[in-house]
Amino acid sequence: MDLKAIAKKLNIAIEQQQLDHAIDELYQLRPIDVADILVLVNPESAWQVLERLPNRATVFAYLDAEDQVSMARIFPRASLVQLIGEMPSDERADLYKRLDQTQRDALLPALAQAEREDIRRLAAYEEGTAGALMTSDYATLRAHMSVSDALAALRLEAPDAETIYHAYVIDDHRKLVGVVSLRSLILAAPEQLIGDIMLSSVVSCNVHEDQEDVAKTVARYDLIALPIIDDSGALVGIVTHDDAMDVASDEATDDFRKSGGVSSFVGSFKDTSIRLLYRKRVFWLVLLVFGNLISGVGISHFEDVIAANLVLVFFLPLLVDSGGNAGSQSATLMVRALATGEVVMRDWFSLLGREAMVALLLGMTMAVAISIIGYFRGDAVVSLVLALSMVSVVMIGCVVGMSLPFVLNKLGFDPASASAPLITSVCDASGVAIYLFIASQFLPL
Amino acid sequence: MDLKAIAKKLNIAIEQQQLDHAIDELYQLRPIDVADILVLVNPESAWQVLERLPNRATVFAYLDAEDQVSMARIFPRASLVQLIGEMPSDERADLYKRLDQTQRDALLPALAQAEREDIRRLAAYEEGTAGALMTSDYATLRAHMSVSDALAALRLEAPDAETIYHAYVIDDHRKLVGVVSLRSLILAAPEQLIGDIMLSSVVSCNVHEDQEDVAKTVARYDLIALPIIDDSGALVGIVTHDDAMDVASDEATDDFRKSGGVSSFVGSFKDTSIRLLYRKRVFWLVLLVFGNLISGVGISHFEDVIAANLVLVFFLPLLVDSGGNAGSQSATLMVRALATGEVVMRDWFSLLGREAMVALLLGMTMAVAISIIGYFRGDAVVSLVLALSMVSVVMIGCVVGMSLPFVLNKLGFDPASASAPLITSVCDASGVAIYLFIASQFLPL
Repeated sequence: MDLKAIAKKLNIAIEQQQLDHAIDELYQLRPIDVADILVLVNPESAWQVLERLPNRATVFAYLDAEDQVSMARIFPRASLVQLIGEMPSDERADLYKRLDQTQRDALLPALAQAEREDIRRLAAYEEGTAGALMTSDYATLRAHMSVSDALAALRLEAPDAETIYHAYVIDDHRKLVGVVSLRSLILAAPEQLIGDIMLSSVVSCNVHEDQEDVAKTVARYDLIALPIIDDSGALVGIVTHDDAMDVASDEATDDFRKSGGVSSFVGSFKDTSIRLLYRKRVFWLVLLVFGNLISGVGISHFEDVIAANLVLVFFLPLLVDSGGNAGSQSATLMVRALATGEVVMRDWFSLLGREAMVALLLGMTMAVAISIIGYFRGDAVVSLVLALSMVSVVMIGCVVGMSLPFVLNKLGFDPASASAPLITSVCDASGVAIYLFIASQFLPL
Repeated sequence: MDLKAIAKKLNIAIEQQQLDHAIDELYQLRPIDVADILVLVNPESAWQVLERLPNRATVFAYLDAEDQVSMARIFPRASLVQLIGEMPSDERADLYKRLDQTQRDALLPALAQAEREDIRRLAAYEEGTAGALMTSDYATLRAHMSVSDALAALRLEAPDAETIYHAYVIDDHRKLVGVVSLRSLILAAPEQLIGDIMLSSVVSCNVHEDQEDVAKTVARYDLIALPIIDDSGALVGIVTHDDAMDVASDEATDDFRKSGGVSSFVGSFKDTSIRLLYRKRVFWLVLLVFGNLISGVGISHFEDVIAANLVLVFFLPLLVDSGGNAGSQSATLMVRALATGEVVMRDWFSLLGREAMVALLLGMTMAVAISIIGYFRGDAVVSLVLALSMVSVVMIGCVVGMSLPFVLNKLGFDPASASAPLITSVCDASGVAIYLFIASQFLPL
């Protein structure tokens, strides 16, 4: 399906003021496709299209944050109030957070009180927590209800709830006491009681928990939605599977960027400004310039042996890079295993033995390669120096690479900050020192 | 919940032959938790526990591949046949693929014919495609059915189908013609026809499509399940949201490993053998040893200027690393943006301009830092050489880092193969040459 072609037709239809046919075509599309088409339309005309769509609030919710805010500025106020009233509660709170104070002040009084309170409540949770992710559009039941009453209640809640496939059973204090799937409801006899068919051991997350843990819980238990409870155990929202999947993807992107030495930033790489990219990249680069001075200090300490054996410089980048490369492998494997929860902090020590063994084998293989080259380029002593150095730098690289994520975590940083550039710099400094120290023991000064 | 403590109690109960109470406790748990407990039990006793659980096939399906195969070896054959008959069809086909020929031969004739054919059909799809991922346990409806007939049909299909929240409408040739959500079914009047309430523009994937595209489609459209069709448009399976989420996570892990210079491998890092880790890491490490020789060649070409100005060696690791670090940042940002689909191949040229601008700013910032150090360590000329070199290596690093993923893709490789180690080595070789060339222009020989 070519969304651009549809957008083109839509633009022509808007110009000719003949929207009926074009709108019919949009009816057949999924809301996210309509949203992608809408951004290709003149923003002044976007409302003309949106107001004719019965699922306009869903379409609007699929727009990028920036597009939402810029359209919200143009829309007639009464229409905007109506649109925001219809939006899914989590998306609505996110939009509200992005509006400036004057826009909020203009908008909030026009909303119904329940919506106003819902927005304020959801917007109050810290970014990155379950609370900031959850929606309040969920379906609840009571344990004393019969199955037929429950089905009738769900029919009433269906238009507003994000999902009715799981309904949450609460008591008089809104405490979460069970969960019922729509599957079990339609299989049960109409007169059975919810309390008898519900699953009472409900998997849930606390509202202050990290969104990464929310995503992991949804993934582990294959949930359609995860109920979110407050400290008293009262149900305050749900996180649906699709939002959990988005979080997992965003967290992977974040770890990926960190692994390349880029600081965290929210949002797409494609649309990021030069200014933001510069800011997110300059920190590590400049820090590592100073970190790499340590390699220089090592070199100047051994200047005599270098001056007497210039062949050492030939192999310098190769040797120090090898340590960094091996270390980057170790760090990447470890950072990802920690992120997926496959490895936990207390596994560090038991993994160290295996890592050292792998490093020894890798180092010996690479030592064979470099010592042959060293023999032809230099002599047997140079060859020996290179072989010994290679085994040492690779082993140190691997141990540093696999330990740094744990150390950073202990110090309160994200293990993913053990980036390839950081590992490379640490391994360079130690590699230079080891290489030149070994050389100084075997070669003439 | 402490799964280890429950496993301990279970082991005691098995020894004392008093399983009833312990089994009751397992009833309250989620299948994946029971599976995690089961691996902590003596394998000989696992069947004793499993056979008492009504959801044994689901629990068994949650076990790791290796545990499934090793338990399958021990279970009584009749029990195993029954268990496999009850398993979700996608998990069953996966297990079948892992059994050896004698086990398959022993098992297959004992299964019902429909199951046998289903296993053969699913196991025939290539790993990594939609076909290898899908399940054949889905619910179908026909367009001429009334809503009340459809609900009755779903009640019959519910025990076997992975989801009944989306039911797929097929014609006489099994061609997929629509989709109906259970939500719309329970909201519709009983006498309405499925053909009138179904959504006829169904999002689907071809059975031969890459599993990564399946996961992206599920994520984009927020689907509970994605129907999979063959080349004739006939429905052959569905992929559920939880399997799509697992694929997205596995693909991210794979890209992560590649970004650190580790070749693809299936499965957990924690349980990987020394032998496999060695094999998956040695390729790039040894290749890059030879690649780094190019840096050595550059150095030997400029040996005169180095010999005359040993201060150059002091800054060598720092300068070449800076190019590699900046390049790793660019590559990581690009590889991930390509993986999430945020950036596509044709965006390369338009992104190059922004990247060059960012690189120039970063290079100038780092040049200021290094030229100050260079002035104090050397003199004004060294300072100038360093500043010019820094701007050049950072710009080249960034352009290489952002271009290599595209080039690799053009050559038929995974863009994620543009790993930090590879970028570092390429940047080292070019960095050495640029640095020493600039030095040779300004400094005495």
